Amino acid sequence: MPPAHDPSKQNAIDMAKARSTTSINVPDIRDFLYNGSAQWRRREQIVKILSTDPLFDKSQRVFASRKEQYIRGQALTNRLYGLQEIHKWSPEDATLAMSVVDDSLPIALHNVAFEPVFRLQASPELFSKYAGLIASRGILGCYLQTELGHGTNVGRLETTATYIPETREFEIDSPTLTSTKWWIGALGKTATHGVVQAKLILPGGKDVGPHLFFIQLRSLDTHKVLPDIIIGDIGPKALAGFAATDNGFARFDHVRIPKENMLSKFAGVTDAGEYVTPPHAKLSYGGMLYIRSGMVTAAGWLIAKGATVAIRYGTVRRQGEVGPDGLERQTISYPSLHVRLIPLLARAHVFIKLGRALSEGFDALARGLSSGDTSKLAEMHVTTSGLKVLVSTTGIQDLETARRSMGGHGYSAFAGVGKMYADYLPAATYEGENFVLDGQVLRAALKAFRALFSTTPRPAVTSLSPSSYYLRLLMDEKLVPPELSPESWKQPAAAILLLEWRAALIVHEIAQTIGAPDATATQRVSRAVTEAFVAPRVGEMIEALSTKLKQREAEVVKKLYLLYLLTTVESALVDLLSFGLFRAAPTGDPPRSRDPTRALRLAIAGLCGELLPQAIGLSDAFGFSDWELDSALGVHDGKVYEALWARVQHEPLNQTEVTEAYEASIKPMLLRGQRMAAKL
Amino acid sequence: MPPAHDPSKQNAIDMAKARSTTSINVPDIRDFLYNGSAQWRRREQIVKILSTDPLFDKSQRVFASRKEQYIRGQALTNRLYGLQEIHKWSPEDATLAMSVVDDSLPIALHNVAFEPVFRLQASPELFSKYAGLIASRGILGCYLQTELGHGTNVGRLETTATYIPETREFEIDSPTLTSTKWWIGALGKTATHGVVQAKLILPGGKDVGPHLFFIQLRSLDTHKVLPDIIIGDIGPKALAGFAATDNGFARFDHVRIPKENMLSKFAGVTDAGEYVTPPHAKLSYGGMLYIRSGMVTAAGWLIAKGATVAIRYGTVRRQGEVGPDGLERQTISYPSLHVRLIPLLARAHVFIKLGRALSEGFDALARGLSSGDTSKLAEMHVTTSGLKVLVSTTGIQDLETARRSMGGHGYSAFAGVGKMYADYLPAATYEGENFVLDGQVLRAALKAFRALFSTTPRPAVTSLSPSSYYLRLLMDEKLVPPELSPESWKQPAAAILLLEWRAALIVHEIAQTIGAPDATATQRVSRAVTEAFVAPRVGEMIEALSTKLKQREAEVVKKLYLLYLLTTVESALVDLLSFGLFRAAPTGDPPRSRDPTRALRLAIAGLCGELLPQAIGLSDAFGFSDWELDSALGVHDGKVYEALWARVQHEPLNQTEVTEAYEASIKPMLLRGQRMAAKL
Repeated sequence: MPPAHDPSKQNAIDMAKARSTTSINVPDIRDFLYNGSAQWRRREQIVKILSTDPLFDKSQRVFASRKEQYIRGQALTNRLYGLQEIHKWSPEDATLAMSVVDDSLPIALHNVAFEPVFRLQASPELFSKYAGLIASRGILGCYLQTELGHGTNVGRLETTATYIPETREFEIDSPTLTSTKWWIGALGKTATHGVVQAKLILPGGKDVGPHLFFIQLRSLDTHKVLPDIIIGDIGPKALAGFAATDNGFARFDHVRIPKENMLSKFAGVTDAGEYVTPPHAKLSYGGMLYIRSGMVTAAGWLIAKGATVAIRYGTVRRQGEVGPDGLERQTISYPSLHVRLIPLLARAHVFIKLGRALSEGFDALARGLSSGDTSKLAEMHVTTSGLKVLVSTTGIQDLETARRSMGGHGYSAFAGVGKMYADYLPAATYEGENFVLDGQVLRAALKAFRALFSTTPRPAVTSLSPSSYYLRLLMDEKLVPPELSPESWKQPAAAILLLEWRAALIVHEIAQTIGAPDATATQRVSRAVTEAFVAPRVGEMIEALSTKLKQREAEVVKKLYLLYLLTTVESALVDLLSFGLFRAAPTGDPPRSRDPTRALRLAIAGLCGELLPQAIGLSDAFGFSDWELDSALGVHDGKVYEALWARVQHEPLNQTEVTEAYEASIKPMLLRGQRMAAKL
Repeated sequence: MPPAHDPSKQNAIDMAKARSTTSINVPDIRDFLYNGSAQWRRREQIVKILSTDPLFDKSQRVFASRKEQYIRGQALTNRLYGLQEIHKWSPEDATLAMSVVDDSLPIALHNVAFEPVFRLQASPELFSKYAGLIASRGILGCYLQTELGHGTNVGRLETTATYIPETREFEIDSPTLTSTKWWIGALGKTATHGVVQAKLILPGGKDVGPHLFFIQLRSLDTHKVLPDIIIGDIGPKALAGFAATDNGFARFDHVRIPKENMLSKFAGVTDAGEYVTPPHAKLSYGGMLYIRSGMVTAAGWLIAKGATVAIRYGTVRRQGEVGPDGLERQTISYPSLHVRLIPLLARAHVFIKLGRALSEGFDALARGLSSGDTSKLAEMHVTTSGLKVLVSTTGIQDLETARRSMGGHGYSAFAGVGKMYADYLPAATYEGENFVLDGQVLRAALKAFRALFSTTPRPAVTSLSPSSYYLRLLMDEKLVPPELSPESWKQPAAAILLLEWRAALIVHEIAQTIGAPDATATQRVSRAVTEAFVAPRVGEMIEALSTKLKQREAEVVKKLYLLYLLTTVESALVDLLSFGLFRAAPTGDPPRSRDPTRALRLAIAGLCGELLPQAIGLSDAFGFSDWELDSALGVHDGKVYEALWARVQHEPLNQTEVTEAYEASIKPMLLRGQRMAAKL
């Protein structure tokens, strides 16, 4: 009895059809996302080199133990820089190559934490001695801040660096178990050197707080750990995440380093042991801001990956009701599914572009900082803090949305999205724990509010920075929130204004009730303030589209950006409704709805429906190769069942017909049971 | 320089202090949760036996590969039933023992899926032949339903069972790649037999839809797979979850089984090949309802585990601001943290008790079914569907809340909560995909709504079943939603009534707009209807407390139940505000708040604050041993840093000072870098 159709062959047919019905020019959107075709082509060349190199094969990775993944990761790293030599890649090319590797490599800590901190804060002498070695990875570094008992509160770190004027040395010491440096990426088995945060103790015992010190950890000849230091790996991470990174611990037992090893560009100690005050203490925040600003674009690309996999699978998976073609419907055709997935495309687009603007802002800030200009620092700090929370929270949720949209198969490791999630999850706690950052955003918002309303005469609207521009709404009593109608959701203005009003009213509310805060206020304010910053940026991005894309493509991207705004409004409904901002007229059609949010929800569903025929084209426009996605469910040709079948053949349990557990355990169990049954 | 205090010793001090300030009688609450002290003691004895048996040691598990975890799991299973013989455990004792093992053992599929389906649907002849062997595990089974290309829509399964009258046999066949049975727990390497869902094809080719067939898969002598069957493991799961279970695949190539092997209690085929219609097709749903009803209590215990770990860690972890004792504050003392964690205690308490009532309901249903009474089936179906979605969605969220509340250390595998999450995550998709179940709840709600409003004269309120009792609010125009004041949140009545009103109005709304549904309606209705069922049950549980606990303990549990209701209202704010149900008076204190939700939020924060001194006592009352929790951050004595330190010593990467990756990769990389730096 032959089947009515072959669902496995149908996969490829469905995918080809979806691709052919896309009306956008995919390369145009792709080049737009990659900031030009030259950048895209460069990336494509590098991906091709890596993905065809046998060392970068991923087919066995999912079966590897953590130790094997660490060892493999080091081989990849060495090979990548070998390829850099062979192909004469620029440092930017090498960074690009590193960014397309989806293993959590320890070298990232050298590149993103150790080197920038060193470059920013080393004295000219230390810089000239080590900068070249660091840049060429002749030494490998890590950044030792967090301790076993101490995280975000740097002021409470226990590690000490005591200055010894007699020998012009610092003595680095871990006085307690809880002062053990912990979670330090690349420390466990890799790094030869590190920059360590320790509280500086001056002669006489005065503690002047945490400072940075450059220290050698392992021998450059044998890689053995240097005397009086205990180093190790802190063990596996939750969900098997970050497997290739050797997050490590270190204890120092009165280890002496020369005075020159203090990172003393902004603060130092005289030979006699007197503290030299830094000109601007905040200069040392630069490194953290750099990392956080990079997280916005990175989140966008990661959401793009999850969305690509889920949208491709939803295009070929058929399930449930029978559609007009007599087959079960493609799962993505169900509104309950695509209203969950299409907004991921929107957020990916927004975060990629927004993050790029932010990184450019950081570059301007860094240029200013190097000439002592700290005027933009506070604004950059609050923006990157709020955005870091927003994109990490959203990215984690979106990856899980993508995974769950794939039903049962989404729980297979071969789906690939689980690994993305496991590796991204710590983004909620690293580089500033999200709840702590929320508190900083709240404080900045209250400070801006008070500055505005306690100054006479009241400052001009033009004096407001972008991060507090929403406060203008409170400055003129004639301003009122927009009246909503179904038309409101067809353009960005109403959504942007609503999100700004929400921030203004919630900050006002918190300022009035600060004596008895409710416990959820911090998160709500932080989210509101950050979204009131992002929304006008998205409005500006919409304005600029016509200069960057042809009309048809610009219209599609505009819909994505608008969808971003509308889903943001939807996620803000509790606040908007609480503050009476959602003054919606009835939709009229169909009648008898009592739900004022209905028009918004229908507008979102409508946009998702309009974008649905472009979903495969938009996914393709992210430009991911099958090698990058490493997902049986996200294969470009749509043949997901064949891909799953091919992968299970590698499963170690399948290499013998009868499992080793049979003789040891299963057989005794069966025999016992048969004996018992016979007795009955 | 000695530290001002030793944070590591402080852990134990903080934990002891928290324990001593608990004012409840912990054993009373524990016995309440376990339905009596006898049940608790039985459990405690069994846990003691298992946790002191070397085979059940967990210290190396986190480092094991998946294959090793499967093999270990089989050893545990064999040992557990060996212990049953030694200690003369009853079947209930063995089930209890199995329930405290936190490995995902394949035997669970035998016990929970294979055996119940067999017992419910086997003919008397088949039953007498195999029931004893199955009960004693002389054969090991699995339940083969899902296929590679087909999940929830059983009607579209491709596997066929063609009746051959000449030989009185069925021929089981997998005609396509996508008809391969897939995801079948215990199939990959373990099961000797299975019950397979296949569409029954009668002579002449008539397809009468899916039916169940009993089939042998592996030799009882050699454990080799029988001829014409291909079986294997489907590979690792996302997040390294369910590692010890051999979810498997199977393809059948025209495999013959005797006619007697059809599970024909409710449907059969005559020797000549004529179909015998089942008396009530729905009788076969019984198995699924049984599994789903068990999921409610299970979710409660799992949330309890996550909450215990997070609350213990929050009690000893000190971070951030300096408190009155001169030390950094205990993290759980921050309202932003404990308003996230205390509600987990509330949900654990509610789900444990609610699930037990549901299981009793199932037992009554099963008694009815066995005598052909199906009157309670539809009600049980809708209740268990909605609750399955509610508890799995909530449980997944709560475990992640617990994990994230622990900051950086929460991402360590040693924290233990990651494993709980990874193993529980598929609950969103197995035993009925949540989005599909939501659709069934929606349909049932609309059916109840229409039955009520299309019948004249309108039925009496007393005719409403518990799952649709909220509809009474629409039957009398004099009924109006409650007016809210801060007093409303001190007793359960207002919260329960609000949640019922929300369900009534949202079902009314959907019934009016069904022609143009918005895409999120299904989930919103399902959640609203289910919570309108749960809330009155919680009200009844509050009423009954005084008969089950002494006054002081009853008051604390009442607060937990009330907190459950208030946080449920909080999570329903969008609906409540949209439908104008949140008619809150201003709180008055402090003045100038414009936020009508403020009184509710303050009430939640207030309850959490009142419960905070009991948090450790309430966690202890769940009765988990350190062995069960397997968490360095959730140790009973609070010495979390020592526990982490002890565990990292076992990390395989730490067994050699210099990693194998050094000679192979790190050294060449360093030498290349040093060469490059020297050239500059």
